[in-house]
Amino acid sequence: MARPMTMTEKIFAAHAGLQEVQPGQLIKAKLDLVLGNDITAPPAIKEFEQISDKVFDKEKIVLVPDHFAPNKDIKSAEMAKTMREFARKHQITHYFEVGRMGIEHVLLPEQGLVAPGEVIIGADSHTCTYGAVGAFATGVGSTDMACAMATGETWFKVPASIRVELTGKLAKWVSGKDVILKLIGMIGVDGARYQSLEFAGVGVAALTMTDRLTIANMAIEAGAKNGIFPFDEVTKAYLAGRVQKSYTPVAADPDAEYARTVTIDLDKLTPVVALPHLPENVRPVNAIQPTPINQVVIGSCTNGRIEDLEQAAAIFHGHQVHEDVRAIIIPGSQDVYLEAVKKGYVEIFIKAGAVVSTPTCGPCLGGHMGILAKGERAVATTNRNFRGRMGHVDSEVYLASPAVAAASAVLGRIAGPEEVA
Amino acid sequence: MARPMTMTEKIFAAHAGLQEVQPGQLIKAKLDLVLGNDITAPPAIKEFEQISDKVFDKEKIVLVPDHFAPNKDIKSAEMAKTMREFARKHQITHYFEVGRMGIEHVLLPEQGLVAPGEVIIGADSHTCTYGAVGAFATGVGSTDMACAMATGETWFKVPASIRVELTGKLAKWVSGKDVILKLIGMIGVDGARYQSLEFAGVGVAALTMTDRLTIANMAIEAGAKNGIFPFDEVTKAYLAGRVQKSYTPVAADPDAEYARTVTIDLDKLTPVVALPHLPENVRPVNAIQPTPINQVVIGSCTNGRIEDLEQAAAIFHGHQVHEDVRAIIIPGSQDVYLEAVKKGYVEIFIKAGAVVSTPTCGPCLGGHMGILAKGERAVATTNRNFRGRMGHVDSEVYLASPAVAAASAVLGRIAGPEEVA
Repeated sequence: MARPMTMTEKIFAAHAGLQEVQPGQLIKAKLDLVLGNDITAPPAIKEFEQISDKVFDKEKIVLVPDHFAPNKDIKSAEMAKTMREFARKHQITHYFEVGRMGIEHVLLPEQGLVAPGEVIIGADSHTCTYGAVGAFATGVGSTDMACAMATGETWFKVPASIRVELTGKLAKWVSGKDVILKLIGMIGVDGARYQSLEFAGVGVAALTMTDRLTIANMAIEAGAKNGIFPFDEVTKAYLAGRVQKSYTPVAADPDAEYARTVTIDLDKLTPVVALPHLPENVRPVNAIQPTPINQVVIGSCTNGRIEDLEQAAAIFHGHQVHEDVRAIIIPGSQDVYLEAVKKGYVEIFIKAGAVVSTPTCGPCLGGHMGILAKGERAVATTNRNFRGRMGHVDSEVYLASPAVAAASAVLGRIAGPEEVA
Repeated sequence: MARPMTMTEKIFAAHAGLQEVQPGQLIKAKLDLVLGNDITAPPAIKEFEQISDKVFDKEKIVLVPDHFAPNKDIKSAEMAKTMREFARKHQITHYFEVGRMGIEHVLLPEQGLVAPGEVIIGADSHTCTYGAVGAFATGVGSTDMACAMATGETWFKVPASIRVELTGKLAKWVSGKDVILKLIGMIGVDGARYQSLEFAGVGVAALTMTDRLTIANMAIEAGAKNGIFPFDEVTKAYLAGRVQKSYTPVAADPDAEYARTVTIDLDKLTPVVALPHLPENVRPVNAIQPTPINQVVIGSCTNGRIEDLEQAAAIFHGHQVHEDVRAIIIPGSQDVYLEAVKKGYVEIFIKAGAVVSTPTCGPCLGGHMGILAKGERAVATTNRNFRGRMGHVDSEVYLASPAVAAASAVLGRIAGPEEVA
């Protein structure tokens, strides 16, 4: 009989054809999906062409031009073109063109391309998002992506796991973003370095899939190899009608071994903000001194889903964006955009004086669509507030939930949602 | 008694405090409005600060960050910041922030800032747009803008005029864009060099204000100093409820002198396209060989108004953007965007697989939001198809109306609207 295992260990054992695995072990795992974007795929394609002329499975590669699209300059247009031509040549099933696409980590779950129990790599740090549906998913470099496109497998060192025990239930205006920022604040940006964050406990059931996607998305910001949620009724309901392929969910053994356990009582959580220049600089929003801002960004792979826009719309409704603030709303996909139009959120945003962008990663990584000048300050629902991340080296990014970001846009300073709503 | 004068001559005489003026005469005219954008205002501000510390009239300066906004990079963010700080310092009434703005030449008429009989300069070539409402309006350089912000006046050489006699009425799917492209095709890109294009004739009455704005917008593409329409019931209806200030329309004297007359029979016009790399390379769309395309752009100061989007929506409705095409729709202002949402056009665009952008000049000038790679080809409702205008020096832009652009997006090749509608 195999040793008791965590979710990640079980997925790895199954994909390595082994009875059991343990932390620190080097394994070679079969891949269910290999992802790249307009920044990372072009160098991967160049490497790929050195080693192969055929992809391992044209249905298991996903290519999304989301970072600089519609293209911001000639260089990004050339990169997108490289990816587009590769997709055509190899008849990649899941190539998403501008107009049919979204931010990769919003798009893949939405389109049913990720499933429980799978092993997924993507040439993008926030590939860990798919742990929300019970997959092992992690970010890799372009060279790893190149080899994976050729062989359909890659090697891993099995990570040790941290059990994140969740209890209680989130209050109004508190969401997944507050949970993950709280956790990163507790353990630090290297608190889970090359470990798996395995979410567990009675608090999980009350978290929506949107909360889980946001939480798993930022596992990397604690240094984690991956973040993963157990498969439950919420997962099942989310996947129904989306995922067509068969999948095998895993559950952690009750006596699985963890490096440590961290407990968060959701009942006690309040809206928080991560101050510059690290996601671990977490404070309750109400404890922050009056801080005037220049820009608000609501969107990204972390918070660009319809429920995120719903939170923002609830705050903006009947209010105006402060005259000193540019408020930029970026739906995570064309489907999210369409739903936001149908539900009246886009009308609320425009009437409030916010702009609504095409789906793009854009400002999150200092790409385009809202870059900061020297000395400017933004509240953003994105995932990283490193120095210069959204523009000038002397600009500042404060990370928060859509509710906090929207309230801050209205008041022109960092503010909690209850100050507006 | 004064000599008989054209519309432009009358406006100049009134603004120079003269009884009459004649072509070739140098005059100094008082200015009713001075415009700048995020590219042209920053250098103008630098010059201004060398010569003055006070603007001539804070209500007669308009500043719009429309070219690279929301900012595409740090440099454009710094330029926008320069303009924003200048607007605050001098309490400029008509500074339009991201979220309250639009493309300058869509925004100013829409917001009632331009009126018949006025003299308007803007540090942007397409300032000539405002001739649609019977103003003299022309583009200038940043240095002229700087002096004008300080003094409220500038010098002009009075242009000779070309009378453009319009007869008949446009057929379905034929619009102002076809009229102005036809005219430029007839007289060439230098056909009206430093002359005024004075539109006249029974055909004017049936042109909507949107048609007129598009036609006047591209007067510069024939080399004209300005383009101007007579004041009539259409003008009056458009201005009602928009323009709060008093204004004095002018009419050309029946015996005014023109350098020449060009006649266009609107009845005979069909949809046309201007081939690369000059706006004068005009052909009927049906005469063009099958030409596959990569991108379609619908928007810009030329064709970013609600009626333009209406034309496009009528074509896209029930159709899909061709899989090889990126279709980018850019409403000209926040008001246009909101109306497009309310009228269901945005829903049609998204369902068709087009993206809808925040208002920006963007790709028209190769700025951002849809830049072309090497060898790529776009059909665009913009105003210039010079080599490399939308991106790579080896890319191509075909100028057309929203109806032609939309039809081309659906069919993946340059196509007339009747092929789809």
